[in-house]
Amino acid sequence: MEWQVVKGSEEEAKRFAELLKGNVAFLFVIGNTKTAEIPGITVAGANPDLIKYTPPADVELLHYGRCKIIPVIPATPDGKPTPALITYTSLRLTRVPFFVVDSGLMEKPMVPYITIGAPVGRNIESESAMNIEDVKEAFNRAVKLGEQMSKLVDVLVIGESIPAGTTTAGAVLRAFGVKHAVSSSMPENPVELKEKVIKKAVERVKSEDPLEIVAEVGDPVMVGVAGIAVGSSKPVLLAGGTQMAAIAHIIKRIKEGADIAIATTVYVAEDPTADISGISPVTVIAADPGLAESSKAGLRAYAEGFVKEGVGAGGATFLAYSRGVSRDELLIEIEKDYWEIVESKM
Amino acid sequence: MEWQVVKGSEEEAKRFAELLKGNVAFLFVIGNTKTAEIPGITVAGANPDLIKYTPPADVELLHYGRCKIIPVIPATPDGKPTPALITYTSLRLTRVPFFVVDSGLMEKPMVPYITIGAPVGRNIESESAMNIEDVKEAFNRAVKLGEQMSKLVDVLVIGESIPAGTTTAGAVLRAFGVKHAVSSSMPENPVELKEKVIKKAVERVKSEDPLEIVAEVGDPVMVGVAGIAVGSSKPVLLAGGTQMAAIAHIIKRIKEGADIAIATTVYVAEDPTADISGISPVTVIAADPGLAESSKAGLRAYAEGFVKEGVGAGGATFLAYSRGVSRDELLIEIEKDYWEIVESKM
Repeated sequence: MEWQVVKGSEEEAKRFAELLKGNVAFLFVIGNTKTAEIPGITVAGANPDLIKYTPPADVELLHYGRCKIIPVIPATPDGKPTPALITYTSLRLTRVPFFVVDSGLMEKPMVPYITIGAPVGRNIESESAMNIEDVKEAFNRAVKLGEQMSKLVDVLVIGESIPAGTTTAGAVLRAFGVKHAVSSSMPENPVELKEKVIKKAVERVKSEDPLEIVAEVGDPVMVGVAGIAVGSSKPVLLAGGTQMAAIAHIIKRIKEGADIAIATTVYVAEDPTADISGISPVTVIAADPGLAESSKAGLRAYAEGFVKEGVGAGGATFLAYSRGVSRDELLIEIEKDYWEIVESKM
Repeated sequence: MEWQVVKGSEEEAKRFAELLKGNVAFLFVIGNTKTAEIPGITVAGANPDLIKYTPPADVELLHYGRCKIIPVIPATPDGKPTPALITYTSLRLTRVPFFVVDSGLMEKPMVPYITIGAPVGRNIESESAMNIEDVKEAFNRAVKLGEQMSKLVDVLVIGESIPAGTTTAGAVLRAFGVKHAVSSSMPENPVELKEKVIKKAVERVKSEDPLEIVAEVGDPVMVGVAGIAVGSSKPVLLAGGTQMAAIAHIIKRIKEGADIAIATTVYVAEDPTADISGISPVTVIAADPGLAESSKAGLRAYAEGFVKEGVGAGGATFLAYSRGVSRDELLIEIEKDYWEIVESKM
């Protein structure tokens, strides 16, 4: 199985697969929230001091096959590499053009990137994430970007990278009244810790307005992704897990008719603590990069509940399959890149 | 006459006109050089303190039909408006997508923009314009941007906005051994002042390497435009006057086979102090937006030697004609925008 529909209709998924054969631009909307500084909430960094470098390092990897801002590629404390590896392989094979969007970064990547003036997100456990005026301005600039970029393509694909993004997603889903189960980059999802943070954050929510809710308990990446999707005149594939489910709700509340779907990895779709099909308001496609069958333990780990998704890995897998890459070929090429980028540097 | 070839072959120009009917992205590469702080060298600003705001204000105008960073649109001290007006009308009529590239800005525009990490240019009269390491890094990022963006289009069009850019262009042309006549935003081109600055700057040049020459006597916008063009896998139309002629030399010295041409306004082409056809190494198309026949004095001024070109106005005119806008229609629409953006606010 290359991919399957875990929510919504088969025709909807096939329509997106067909669109992905045409002119595609892949956008990576990246940023930071200080919520990631809560001890134990994320493993998106080899140690707490490195977490803020994960988003810029991820997109440097996509451009150069190596990172510049930090000497090695982002990994969990026990060495599981960033899912940007999968995305890197897909972009290399499909030759789809991609663009980085700074949507609230603490540290800027050493690549060309688009900025929309979004602020870094504050820690939602203790204070509101962003000022509403900043959110509105960044959202409006993202809308402009979506308007312009969508003119050049048949479909936009949007991935994200923001450590602790599943926690802010959980808070937004809860504030929207959606069952708020969220995935995690850890096999033992720190559900109780997240729940405590989410509960404290959501108690502050006094508004029904989606952007005001995001400003209170969300993060800046949500602002960028939602703005681009709202501005787009073409269909948009949200490449990610529970974070994109939360963003899909934001988009639908702002623009009901938005033509969007979610593509994620089977590792998120199969995560019983995530319930992506339960929380998504739109069609969800789960793509399988086949890492369970990898000869490399570092890649098999993804299939064993580590990392699971991020930097558009699920959408990138769906993209590769839609453009004729076979499952065997994709795995061989991911393993080749894993050797060149990770193993050969050990 | 809508446009004519003033250098090179008619077929070359027709090939570009044909390409412009397809998928096009218009990039505006904007920045600053402190060379603009030399009294009397530029009129790209209502007063010397406002000059640095001209590039960001120009691109805000393109996005919003008004400026945000300053209360009125950029103009010369005696009130001649920015040529971004012409470009605004063309983009509105053709619906071609456009993107702003920060290539060494002092002040950032309130629009989404791409950054390549270019430094602000220093005053070439007294010191080297940029550090070569900064130039190389920004150039390489611009190459990456050109690689990605060109995948989405049939042709890239690149315009610029950098006050005092004709002076740095003159210095680069002189350093390359090209006859260095340069145009100006003033009817009485301050040739002697420019000549003095250029002479002092070029005396410092010790290298034949194009990027080292740009680092010594050029400006950051040259770095961005040249990098994008070198990275592009598709033809590139340089939309501008003598500045683009200097950049065309840079590009050809780095990538001899680069498929580039220049489109400018007839006002530059007819400028006896500019000699665009003499200094360009590539085909030059001169487009006539017909402003000589305008009922509005503020627009006729362009045809009387003021402003002449900038923010891609000549290329935008050629673009509009290539996509079927007639000369009469273009003039009517420019006048309409001039009324809405300038006259109605007086």
